[in-house]
Amino acid sequence: MTLAQEILAGSRLALARLLSQIENGTPQGRAGLADLFPYTGRAHLIGVTGAPGTGKSSLVNALAQRYRQPGDGMASRRVGIVAVDPSSPFTGGAILGDRVRMRDLAGDPGVFIRSMASRGSLGGLAAATSGVVQALDAAGFEVVLIETVGAGQAEVDIARLAHTTLVIEAPGLGDDIQAIKAGILEIADVLVINKADRPGVETTERALKSMLALAHPVAHVFRDVRSTVPGAQAESHIQDEKKVESLWVPPVCKTVAIEGIGIGELTLAIQQHLGHLKQTGELALRERSRLQAELEGLLRDVLVARWRMALSDGKYEEMLQRMLERQVSPWQAVEELIA
Amino acid sequence: MTLAQEILAGSRLALARLLSQIENGTPQGRAGLADLFPYTGRAHLIGVTGAPGTGKSSLVNALAQRYRQPGDGMASRRVGIVAVDPSSPFTGGAILGDRVRMRDLAGDPGVFIRSMASRGSLGGLAAATSGVVQALDAAGFEVVLIETVGAGQAEVDIARLAHTTLVIEAPGLGDDIQAIKAGILEIADVLVINKADRPGVETTERALKSMLALAHPVAHVFRDVRSTVPGAQAESHIQDEKKVESLWVPPVCKTVAIEGIGIGELTLAIQQHLGHLKQTGELALRERSRLQAELEGLLRDVLVARWRMALSDGKYEEMLQRMLERQVSPWQAVEELIA
Repeated sequence: MTLAQEILAGSRLALARLLSQIENGTPQGRAGLADLFPYTGRAHLIGVTGAPGTGKSSLVNALAQRYRQPGDGMASRRVGIVAVDPSSPFTGGAILGDRVRMRDLAGDPGVFIRSMASRGSLGGLAAATSGVVQALDAAGFEVVLIETVGAGQAEVDIARLAHTTLVIEAPGLGDDIQAIKAGILEIADVLVINKADRPGVETTERALKSMLALAHPVAHVFRDVRSTVPGAQAESHIQDEKKVESLWVPPVCKTVAIEGIGIGELTLAIQQHLGHLKQTGELALRERSRLQAELEGLLRDVLVARWRMALSDGKYEEMLQRMLERQVSPWQAVEELIA
Repeated sequence: MTLAQEILAGSRLALARLLSQIENGTPQGRAGLADLFPYTGRAHLIGVTGAPGTGKSSLVNALAQRYRQPGDGMASRRVGIVAVDPSSPFTGGAILGDRVRMRDLAGDPGVFIRSMASRGSLGGLAAATSGVVQALDAAGFEVVLIETVGAGQAEVDIARLAHTTLVIEAPGLGDDIQAIKAGILEIADVLVINKADRPGVETTERALKSMLALAHPVAHVFRDVRSTVPGAQAESHIQDEKKVESLWVPPVCKTVAIEGIGIGELTLAIQQHLGHLKQTGELALRERSRLQAELEGLLRDVLVARWRMALSDGKYEEMLQRMLERQVSPWQAVEELIA
C-alpha cells in the first residue's frame, strides 16, 4: 500500500509520516498529495488568528472539544488542528499552546494535531500549510482548525486558506492594538472577544462594532433605515433583505474559552457563515482563489529553480559583485541576467 | 533635470514623488532607483520592530530627535523614517504612530518621514520598502529608521534590510508573549525594554537575559570563566577576548521613550553595533546578502510575469478548472503547464 492508501484506510502513523514529508518538501510528499488530492475539498477549513495574549490556543481547544460532541443539531465531527507559528522563522520549533493542547485533547482518535513553524521563506510555510491541510481533509477530518499567531501578512496569507476566518481579540491588550484591528478586521468572518470575563470587555466590543460599522456601511445603513423609519419599512423591506442577504457582516461573539463559555454560540456563528458561503456561491469562489494562489506559488518556485539551474554560478556571482560595487542597480542586473 | 538629479540636489518634493512611484512599482520609479543606485550604501539602516503596545513609534521619534542633536561625540545627522505596516494589507492606509510623529518632528528639514502599507503581496511590500530606503540613502539621509509593527515573517524580512535591528519589548504584555520573543530574539542586535517605568520591568529584563544566555551560550560561558575562576583568568584572557570580540551579544537597553530617558545610551549601543559590524567584516556580508535577496525577489517577479505573458489565458483557466474538479493536483498542474 502507498502512504496515501494507508491514510485513506485510516492510519494515523501514515498521516504523520506524510505530513513530515510535506513539511520538508520531499518528492514523496508531493506524490502523496497528488494521490490524495481527489479526496480533498470536503472539510470545513476554519482559520483562527489574533494577537498574542488573546487565548487563541485555548479557544481552538474549546472549539475542537465542542465539535467532538454531538448536540445542537450537529453530529460529532473529526477535527484536525494545524498550529502555524510564523514568528519562529529560525528555531524550527513550534510551541504554540502545545502544553495546553496535550492536556485537553490527547488520546482522542477523532483529533489530529500538527504544529508547524516557518522554515526559511514565508511562501514555503504557506505552501507547506496548504499541503498539510489538504492531507487532513483527504484523511477525513471534517473540520480543520488552522491557528496562527499574530496579525501580519503571514496570517493574512494563511487566512486565505480558510473558508471561515475567526479573528480573536481580548480586552485590554495595549495602546496601539487598534492599528492591528484595522487591517485584520477585513479578513474576519467572525469576531471573537475571548477572555470576556475581564474588565474592559464593553470597551473592546464597542470599538469592534464601530469599526465594523465603518467597514460595512451599506449593511448598517439598511439596518438603520429599518429600525428608525418604520413607515418606510414595509415598502423597502423585501428589496433591502435581498441586498443584506448577499452581505456578511461579521458577528461579534464573546467567549471565555478556558471555561467553555460562549463556545456553543460561536460554533453556531461559524455554521451560519458556512451556510452563507454556500447560499451565495462564495464558497466556490473562495475555493477557486485558494487553488489559484497555490498554483501560482508553486509555479513561481519551479520557474525560479529551473532558471537558476540553467544559469552558471559564475555569471550570477559576477552580477552580485557589480551590484555591490554600485556599478549596476538591482533592476539593471535582472535585465542583464534574463536577457 | 531628472527626478534623480533633483533629489541629489536636495529637493524634498522630487523625493516624495519618486517614493510614490517606487511604491506603485512604475517604470519611472525603477528608472529613478537605477539613477540613484550609485549614491546608495552610505546610510546606517536601523530596523525597529516589536509587538503592538511596546511604544515603537515613540521610540523611533525619540531616536530621530536624538540623532538631530549633536553631542556625545556625534554630529547632527539627517534622519529618514520609513514606517511599514504589513498588518494593513487591504486598506492601503498607513497609520503607524503618524499623529505622534507629526507633533514631534514636523517642520524639521533634516527629517523625512514615509509611511507604507502593504499593497497586495508581502514580497511587493519588502521590495517597495527596499526601494524607498535606497532612495532616502541616496538623498543623503545618514540614518534611516525602518519601523515595523508585529513580530511575524514580514518583520523578519524587513529586518533583513537593516544593518542594526532593535527589538522592542515592554513590561507586562500578556501571557504568550514569550512565544514571540523566542523567534524574534534571533534577529535582535539590540534589545530595548521601553516603558521601563512600568511595573514588571525586572521580570521582563530577567526573562530576556535568560533567553539571551540560551541563545548565546559561548559568550556567556566565557564571561563566567573570567568572573568566577580568577586563577584561570590571566592565561586564557587574551584568547577568550578574541573569540568574544567576533561575537555580538545583544545588549539590553531600558528606555522611557516619551520622556527621552535612556535614549542616549541606546544610540551608543547602536553605534557600538555598527562599529562591531565594520570591525568584523560583517557589514560587507550583510550588504551582500541584502542585495542578493533583493536581486532574487526581482528575478522571481520578472520570470513569472514573462512566463505568464507567454502562456495563453485559456490554457491557464482550463488547468485551474481541472484542479477545481480534483482531476489534477496543484503539482501535476505545474508540471503540465511548464512542460
